[in-house]
Amino acid sequence: MTSASQPLDINLWSQNHLARVEQALSQWVGDGAPAGLGDAMRYAVLDGGKRLRPLLVLAAYEAVCSGASASAVYEDAALRAACAVELIHAYSLVHDDMPCMDNDVLRRGKPTVHVQFGEAQALLAGDALQAFAFELLTPDNTLIPAATQATLCRLLARAAGSAGMAGGQAIDLASVGVALTEAQLRQMHRLKTGALLQGSVLMGAVCGHAVGAAYQALSDYGAAMGLAFQVVDDILDVVADSATLGKTAGKDAAADKPTYVSLLGLARAQAYAQELLAEAHAALAHSGLPDTRALGALADMVVRRSH
Amino acid sequence: MTSASQPLDINLWSQNHLARVEQALSQWVGDGAPAGLGDAMRYAVLDGGKRLRPLLVLAAYEAVCSGASASAVYEDAALRAACAVELIHAYSLVHDDMPCMDNDVLRRGKPTVHVQFGEAQALLAGDALQAFAFELLTPDNTLIPAATQATLCRLLARAAGSAGMAGGQAIDLASVGVALTEAQLRQMHRLKTGALLQGSVLMGAVCGHAVGAAYQALSDYGAAMGLAFQVVDDILDVVADSATLGKTAGKDAAADKPTYVSLLGLARAQAYAQELLAEAHAALAHSGLPDTRALGALADMVVRRSH
Repeated sequence: MTSASQPLDINLWSQNHLARVEQALSQWVGDGAPAGLGDAMRYAVLDGGKRLRPLLVLAAYEAVCSGASASAVYEDAALRAACAVELIHAYSLVHDDMPCMDNDVLRRGKPTVHVQFGEAQALLAGDALQAFAFELLTPDNTLIPAATQATLCRLLARAAGSAGMAGGQAIDLASVGVALTEAQLRQMHRLKTGALLQGSVLMGAVCGHAVGAAYQALSDYGAAMGLAFQVVDDILDVVADSATLGKTAGKDAAADKPTYVSLLGLARAQAYAQELLAEAHAALAHSGLPDTRALGALADMVVRRSH
Repeated sequence: MTSASQPLDINLWSQNHLARVEQALSQWVGDGAPAGLGDAMRYAVLDGGKRLRPLLVLAAYEAVCSGASASAVYEDAALRAACAVELIHAYSLVHDDMPCMDNDVLRRGKPTVHVQFGEAQALLAGDALQAFAFELLTPDNTLIPAATQATLCRLLARAAGSAGMAGGQAIDLASVGVALTEAQLRQMHRLKTGALLQGSVLMGAVCGHAVGAAYQALSDYGAAMGLAFQVVDDILDVVADSATLGKTAGKDAAADKPTYVSLLGLARAQAYAQELLAEAHAALAHSGLPDTRALGALADMVVRRSH
């Protein structure tokens, strides 16, 4: 085991953990589905994406159980949770890209799911991915306690639903061409992106049995990091090009959507991202957890990413 | 308590149970959602529908716990399960009606959700309703045991997903203009409609702690009744008019979709529905449960309905 005082090679850490996530997703997604639907589900999920949400689940899990208390049962739970949050994220992108929403034809440098498989199949694939997320969290013939399964479902359902991601998207939809206050913009992003990012951290924490102050600190970390992610997303939409982003750049401005950049200006938006990063690190420092290096490094990655 | 040997007034029974379901749905659906999204969710769910799936949940629950062993905790679980299956059903109708799927403008005699609220809001409302189903099944601050919550989520996720409802819809999508065998048609309907109907029965059974032979008998009942439902649906698409159906009649034939009527002819399809009804009753008779009158009456209703 590496000491918590040594610097962590986050690239190596991510590589190792991503390999497990990719392998699990590849094994599970689309298994048992009718051929066309299974293909669309796999296309939507595999070979793409930063996998930030799964990494957050696994980093939070490891921060809490810190090696010694890790067990194969809870590692399985954390891996399932990691895949489940990615399935929810992936389904939301499939539906978001559809003509009636953002009408985007490019995602992660590939044709979007509805372009590749048709709109009806894309709609169904998204629906099936959401259901499958909850199926992954509730295996039978497992030693994962029912209490862990139920709590994971509760956290995921809330993060994904009308008081979480879907709710945020609805506010986003209603906000085109509307002047939002900073508080309204923050609330929209808390739901739209923040809820699932924070939910990922909390689901990892639950698999590692976090309680009390540590759970609260991880919740605070997740909230700050989740908001930072969106502020940086808004910045990248302005400063990056489509090739780097792997999706169409400049869409928010073109669609007249309120963003942190349109509200605060570029310089203040960048400063705000740094503030939120500092908040995330402060939460980790106050968590009482011995080794939060991976969580800290993931927050750094979120703010310093170029796409 | 009514004796199991007396005939049951299924209309009165349904009225009493529907009142609880409607009241719960009205209280829960859209609560805490952003205004536009909440409105679309409520429009999709409230004031309409036969509520067959919730009634199956409650009838199975009561058949298993038979009065004496009923408790407020498990009644709450059964009511939540009843609402959750209806939310899944309702979301599937919202997405099914969209232009990229069936492109239907009329449902239960009202404009469909996308006609009323726009396609983007309809897509999101469906997504949020699915998430909310799982949220309803996993309340915190409750005495419903985690094992019950987790099992309900497992059953619902499987019934709704790629090896259930969504999978059946994908097969349906791929079957337009294709000549299916009777076995293929049955498999499609087992997934598309049967999985959620059978899942409703099983979820009720779980809330009432059914085990062993009783659970298996209810599963057999659910399978037969679920298939009967679809056979009758196919028959009604041919023999009923749009006003009675509350949706566009003759759509299957117009869309060149394989149905039991196109495969077997009307008379044999009607005979098959009667056979399945007899199978459902036989399963109840062999269940060893003292009072399965409501389940029996619901199966009768399914086969004898006019819409």
